[in-house]
Amino acid sequence: MKNPPAYCFTLELAVRDYEVDMFGVVNHSVYLRYLEHTRHTFLKSLGIDAAHMQQRGFNLVVTHIDIDYKQPLKSGELFVVKLAVPAVTRVRFIFLQDIYNLSSQQLTTSAKIVGTAIPPKGRPVIPDEFYHALHQQVP
Amino acid sequence: MKNPPAYCFTLELAVRDYEVDMFGVVNHSVYLRYLEHTRHTFLKSLGIDAAHMQQRGFNLVVTHIDIDYKQPLKSGELFVVKLAVPAVTRVRFIFLQDIYNLSSQQLTTSAKIVGTAIPPKGRPVIPDEFYHALHQQVP
Amino acid sequence: MKNPPAYCFTLELAVRDYEVDMFGVVNHSVYLRYLEHTRHTFLKSLGIDAAHMQQRGFNLVVTHIDIDYKQPLKSGELFVVKLAVPAVTRVRFIFLQDIYNLSSQQLTTSAKIVGTAIPPKGRPVIPDEFYHALHQQVP
Amino acid sequence: MKNPPAYCFTLELAVRDYEVDMFGVVNHSVYLRYLEHTRHTFLKSLGIDAAHMQQRGFNLVVTHIDIDYKQPLKSGELFVVKLAVPAVTRVRFIFLQDIYNLSSQQLTTSAKIVGTAIPPKGRPVIPDEFYHALHQQVP
Repeated sequence: MKNPPAYCFTLELAVRDYEVDMFGVVNHSVYLRYLEHTRHTFLKSLGIDAAHMQQRGFNLVVTHIDIDYKQPLKSGELFVVKLAVPAVTRVRFIFLQDIYNLSSQQLTTSAKIVGTAIPPKGRPVIPDEFYHALHQQVP
Repeated sequence: MKNPPAYCFTLELAVRDYEVDMFGVVNHSVYLRYLEHTRHTFLKSLGIDAAHMQQRGFNLVVTHIDIDYKQPLKSGELFVVKLAVPAVTRVRFIFLQDIYNLSSQQLTTSAKIVGTAIPPKGRPVIPDEFYHALHQQVP
Repeated sequence: MKNPPAYCFTLELAVRDYEVDMFGVVNHSVYLRYLEHTRHTFLKSLGIDAAHMQQRGFNLVVTHIDIDYKQPLKSGELFVVKLAVPAVTRVRFIFLQDIYNLSSQQLTTSAKIVGTAIPPKGRPVIPDEFYHALHQQVP
Repeated sequence: MKNPPAYCFTLELAVRDYEVDMFGVVNHSVYLRYLEHTRHTFLKSLGIDAAHMQQRGFNLVVTHIDIDYKQPLKSGELFVVKLAVPAVTRVRFIFLQDIYNLSSQQLTTSAKIVGTAIPPKGRPVIPDEFYHALHQQVP
């Protein structure tokens, strides 16, 4: 097993019963929501608010996800989402996000997320303040 | 651009407004739901019912997803999910799934899904009838 | 049992497996999504597009829901959502929406939805074309 | 305005951006999820676990909801869900649940939820330990 990345943000959450599907585990699509909520909370901690960006015409978009589901999360379980920013350029950002079960300490999910920002007109570009704030988080 | 895979199943769907997020496009997590619904509908067309499997103690699980978001889907748009089965073994299956906007005919999303089945006890294994039905779909 | 209302629109849908919760039935919150999707599809059939309204600054909002859950829907089941418009005024609209299991023909869910539209500024008011289109549907 | 009920449980939560719809506010169906999560968390604080009940064959079901949407919640807002149990019998329980915006202290949503439990066979009935635990919360 390779070393975990240098995480710069963590968020603790709990499984909600409506997120559990008929197989008795958190539905695989729900993890993307945990990851998005963690990214937006992280960005807010840097002073970047996705909703404010949207009001100024900038949409955050995910362009690629690569995700491994290793262990399922179940009803009532607590978990922590850890986040690293391995790279950011003027046209895209990359997040590594790992989810650990807080009780077993096991890695349950591991994902690489690539995204960008779409301005009101023209081609994708990361706004300046977003770029600089994120760049400071790159190890 | 590489050639599209040999699709063996397609399903037409429409964006529902509750699937559109504050950025005015279908939230990226929702595509996983479109893809799951298409896989389950495809499996049902082969006589394999995920809910019946669950009642016999077999849980279908997704172990890996690799997904490219190329163009967003928006409120009211019609789209088609196309599916291919490039490979299946006794311990895992692979789906390729592409989503096309029906109006523009553009490829909006392209994904590779890897999964398996978990029996009531023991290690992951694809049940016989599931394996044979799926194997017939491999080009 | 009282008579059903004079329905003016129906939409057939199928349960998707991700909508089924750990109890093996469609989660109660999902029915609100079936009902919203049916209302928006109905409105579109009258030439009223919720997304277009939003782009002009008018937000459709639900102000009250009264819903009876009579029979659960399960994995794979087909159902029809029927809709009536018992009343509309300049400041609110009322929908009655009933969901029937297509196989058993049983009434599974019955709801009364009250809503309005919020203009860019000022108090709730139903736009003219919306009011007139809906008013024609009142028995 | 009538007096608020005698709340016996409160849960603080934050809006997650994926819960916000194209109108820029939390979609009305999401409030039912906030309410369910609060009820299940409350029940767990009484020693009643919905997932454990399900494993023993008892399904919790909602039979009726009456909900008023007074003020919308938006991206990033914090809120508290307050809960009261005005009545419980051997065949049904009633919850009153109010959601307050933590910043404005305004009541945003007010709901009455009626539910029951379905045993593996036979008619709805509240299991003994559930009934007694809940009955102690009735003012």
